[in-house]
Amino acid sequence: MTLSVDYQAMLEGIAAEVRQLENPGRVATYIPELKRVPAEKFGICLVDPAGKACGVGDYEERFSIQSIAKVLSLALAFRLEKDRLWQRVGVEPSGTAFNSLVQLEAENGIPRNPLINAGALVVCDVLVSRLPDPKAEIIGLVRQLCGNPAIDFCERVAQSEQSHGFRNAAHINLMKAYGNIRNDVERVLDLYFHLCSIEMSCLELAGAFRFLANDGINPHDGERIISASMTKRINAIMMLCGFYDEAGEFAFQVGLPGKSGVGGGIVALQPREFCIAVWSPPLNAKGNSFLGMQVLELLTTRTGLSIF
Amino acid sequence: MTLSVDYQAMLEGIAAEVRQLENPGRVATYIPELKRVPAEKFGICLVDPAGKACGVGDYEERFSIQSIAKVLSLALAFRLEKDRLWQRVGVEPSGTAFNSLVQLEAENGIPRNPLINAGALVVCDVLVSRLPDPKAEIIGLVRQLCGNPAIDFCERVAQSEQSHGFRNAAHINLMKAYGNIRNDVERVLDLYFHLCSIEMSCLELAGAFRFLANDGINPHDGERIISASMTKRINAIMMLCGFYDEAGEFAFQVGLPGKSGVGGGIVALQPREFCIAVWSPPLNAKGNSFLGMQVLELLTTRTGLSIF
Amino acid sequence: MTLSVDYQAMLEGIAAEVRQLENPGRVATYIPELKRVPAEKFGICLVDPAGKACGVGDYEERFSIQSIAKVLSLALAFRLEKDRLWQRVGVEPSGTAFNSLVQLEAENGIPRNPLINAGALVVCDVLVSRLPDPKAEIIGLVRQLCGNPAIDFCERVAQSEQSHGFRNAAHINLMKAYGNIRNDVERVLDLYFHLCSIEMSCLELAGAFRFLANDGINPHDGERIISASMTKRINAIMMLCGFYDEAGEFAFQVGLPGKSGVGGGIVALQPREFCIAVWSPPLNAKGNSFLGMQVLELLTTRTGLSIF
Amino acid sequence: MTLSVDYQAMLEGIAAEVRQLENPGRVATYIPELKRVPAEKFGICLVDPAGKACGVGDYEERFSIQSIAKVLSLALAFRLEKDRLWQRVGVEPSGTAFNSLVQLEAENGIPRNPLINAGALVVCDVLVSRLPDPKAEIIGLVRQLCGNPAIDFCERVAQSEQSHGFRNAAHINLMKAYGNIRNDVERVLDLYFHLCSIEMSCLELAGAFRFLANDGINPHDGERIISASMTKRINAIMMLCGFYDEAGEFAFQVGLPGKSGVGGGIVALQPREFCIAVWSPPLNAKGNSFLGMQVLELLTTRTGLSIF
Repeated sequence: MTLSVDYQAMLEGIAAEVRQLENPGRVATYIPELKRVPAEKFGICLVDPAGKACGVGDYEERFSIQSIAKVLSLALAFRLEKDRLWQRVGVEPSGTAFNSLVQLEAENGIPRNPLINAGALVVCDVLVSRLPDPKAEIIGLVRQLCGNPAIDFCERVAQSEQSHGFRNAAHINLMKAYGNIRNDVERVLDLYFHLCSIEMSCLELAGAFRFLANDGINPHDGERIISASMTKRINAIMMLCGFYDEAGEFAFQVGLPGKSGVGGGIVALQPREFCIAVWSPPLNAKGNSFLGMQVLELLTTRTGLSIF
Repeated sequence: MTLSVDYQAMLEGIAAEVRQLENPGRVATYIPELKRVPAEKFGICLVDPAGKACGVGDYEERFSIQSIAKVLSLALAFRLEKDRLWQRVGVEPSGTAFNSLVQLEAENGIPRNPLINAGALVVCDVLVSRLPDPKAEIIGLVRQLCGNPAIDFCERVAQSEQSHGFRNAAHINLMKAYGNIRNDVERVLDLYFHLCSIEMSCLELAGAFRFLANDGINPHDGERIISASMTKRINAIMMLCGFYDEAGEFAFQVGLPGKSGVGGGIVALQPREFCIAVWSPPLNAKGNSFLGMQVLELLTTRTGLSIF
Repeated sequence: MTLSVDYQAMLEGIAAEVRQLENPGRVATYIPELKRVPAEKFGICLVDPAGKACGVGDYEERFSIQSIAKVLSLALAFRLEKDRLWQRVGVEPSGTAFNSLVQLEAENGIPRNPLINAGALVVCDVLVSRLPDPKAEIIGLVRQLCGNPAIDFCERVAQSEQSHGFRNAAHINLMKAYGNIRNDVERVLDLYFHLCSIEMSCLELAGAFRFLANDGINPHDGERIISASMTKRINAIMMLCGFYDEAGEFAFQVGLPGKSGVGGGIVALQPREFCIAVWSPPLNAKGNSFLGMQVLELLTTRTGLSIF
Repeated sequence: MTLSVDYQAMLEGIAAEVRQLENPGRVATYIPELKRVPAEKFGICLVDPAGKACGVGDYEERFSIQSIAKVLSLALAFRLEKDRLWQRVGVEPSGTAFNSLVQLEAENGIPRNPLINAGALVVCDVLVSRLPDPKAEIIGLVRQLCGNPAIDFCERVAQSEQSHGFRNAAHINLMKAYGNIRNDVERVLDLYFHLCSIEMSCLELAGAFRFLANDGINPHDGERIISASMTKRINAIMMLCGFYDEAGEFAFQVGLPGKSGVGGGIVALQPREFCIAVWSPPLNAKGNSFLGMQVLELLTTRTGLSIF
């Protein structure tokens, strides 16, 4: 498939159409830094295998990628731990709200998958065990994947998350009680809150996820990030677990592996075809960007693209 | 992609390899008809878009397809009800054991998806409401999809299921209490138990699922069974919900949409590429064929095929 | 303690006071026979150890005692089975809504206690196994306890319950799946629905429960119904499990063992002191008579009576 | 009732009998300070309304009273907050294991009752809000109730609990996320762990609980600790919630309000009759002293005493 000017036109058409929609979504309010983002922000960026990007709206403006970063920390931990990782975190959909403690308690402190909060905390614990400076390593990886050394954590967001992060503290303490957290709770939480504070634009996000559409090789520098088999597995996890308890709905409507964040971002990809990132802050009842979901549904309906 | 003799050789290689494995699985014992099937039965059949089949072992011997039939009844109900169907059944992974009542109670009698028992019962209720003779229609569809009028229900299995079906009776009565079953409980259960009793060979199964790898068109007669969009959606549901609470594991290891049954059968497919059916009665702890899972994992690892 | 005219005056005072209250309760509507009972019906009857009764309002009018009857069937089954009964039903509070299937599933078909629906169904199953004509035996016991041969089932209510009893059918089928129901499901349900259909007045109810305030001896004929130890245990079960998931609130406010029914009746007793029955159809959100709870709270507050 | 030498003889008889029993219980091992207590320690002490005590075995040796202290902190918080307390903690049995997070999450951070860990943490939060020096006040109250200024916290136990208290940290953080903890999490946990570290003998414990058998008046100094109505309510809560998820079993076998701790202590009382404390470290599967339960069951069976 070749990416052509048709894509630019299509994105513009989709953008025009979804902007007409009444948006019932609500901007996340649990920390001030997310609450004050203007609800009308809206951007889309699609990048093809050759690296050609087309975008509309605020696609070059950075926002808080939040949980989307969990895919990148997972890639790093998977590379370090190999299949040992799966002794400490599952690969099954959660079947309940993304922050539920119920399943964690019922399953002895083993989170259902690495993209729910508890699972991402275990991934952070692995990084703290394995790396002398996990924050530097993770941001280094993100910069490499974007080919952009300016990407960074947002300290204000990280601090704000920390001061409102009682539920995450509940999760990690519960897992610690079950022996599934090896390091100091505060240190792991600090990494986790920094991870969620990374700021990127749609253009940078779509670029950073290209290695997952490219069998694990970073197109920016040709370096292999993870094996083809690991890539396939991370895509499968995104497919089944990337949208909290709306994963099935997303697969049903869109049919692509992807990941959303409460900052209103969504990344999705078709292996060997394209990566797309969308940003619109108002979230639907399940915590996913309302317009982001609409954009991706229209995209796959119009192109007929889907992995199915 | 062209199917070649390589496939035949590959299936033979895989069969030779998995037959060496120690099989910790257990044949289903809850009804005598399943219990008495020899554990060593083993067949694989792969069919390409042109209809060319290659197979190994007992791939022409019929067995009880059990829950695999739920995909076919879903296709029929989806065609009849269109998107109204989704008011009565969800499209999300269940996150718990396939026969759990917990989620059903927590969510007011709306089953999580149409491939768990409760969801398949709602699908049967739709068929009873919509069709004068739902048993005849469903078996008629299966025969059309196989191009084989000899496919049939097994009355002994259906009766046996009925006399052991207290948990299914619990499910349907609970949904009836919530108003999500419109017809007489006994009539719907009768259809459901017949549906699960259908007997097919790997060759017939792989053939019958080809329409789902072919955008909804039955290759046997060129007739459109369901729309391309419906096809995509049923594949997404199989991807996320086809393997009980091991759906994530299957996506992670195999990366194809599929469906398993407690008779030891598994069907999987790569859209526009192939359909494959495997049969080996001993089940793993999650209720899926142990060897069937191994075969499919080896197949995708060796071919590099996967939707991801 | 001697019962005196003070009690009559006190009941009249309490009745006058609670009738002033705005009643937010709702009459049960799930079967027509309960729905059509006038909401303003209201009766209280208190009986002392000597058998002297005082009453106010509609205390001689019969109503559907519903779940209150579960205490009497329990007494009969306990007498027949002795402590073997507790292998099939627990003595712990349920901690969830009275009709929840969750706990039943989590605990392998063993109901938490004999006063929730599932537990009362197990009790009925015991009676069906043990007695040639369980309906005759249970109504015979109730008549003996009241000293009144006119007490009877209400066939209309029993039929109506049966035709709306899908949730009970779900419970009993689930327990049957776990092997905790020995008899035909329909036969046990028939006994259960008849049990819940018994009609008695406050006067008759307060009389019938006197054996539980009298160490197990029926004051009407001096016959021992159950041992003193069994009596103590049934009272303990009523204390902890008699008010669905409001048992703690009742103990906290009232401090007496008792049992309520969705017909709006409540029976409570102080061992060796008195039995009281109250009837007012509108139920609070937990399914207990709103005014009934108020009456009993006022009674114990004014008299200072309580087992604590 | 008058306490006579019969009680001394009875306690000795019971002690002799239960010491013959094979004890399947296990001493708590989660902190070293509990683990190293000799399993054979055994004491009983019963105190009558006049303050006369009789005891057997190690009844004058102090041990870690652990959760038994939650009743005393509850009395203090109830006195300070009055019925406002019940907006933040329920009075219902928990229906699940004593340390479960499930119910807390399902019920928006409101613990089921003040005797489970989460509820006791809310009680501690109330004390931190209300009192300038809550540790001094609570230990002061305990000393007053015993008439013994030597009672104290055990700092080693408190520190040890803190360093193993991840599950309690999970509970309190979850409640903080729901807004049901007002103070700094560390400060509340510090009070909680100190509370659980109090050391008392059976003699002191039985004495300290006498006010609950005496309508709220401390017999040692005649001072009213709480109102008669509050006393009745705390007794009701002990009756329904004092023995984790074995509360029903205890009511069923023993029929007295009481409270157990993982140190192997149990206190129980018959209002206006007696207080009894038992100590034997090995715990049954539910976390209650195995021999303690036996002693109390024998006591009530032999004396015929029970509130029912």
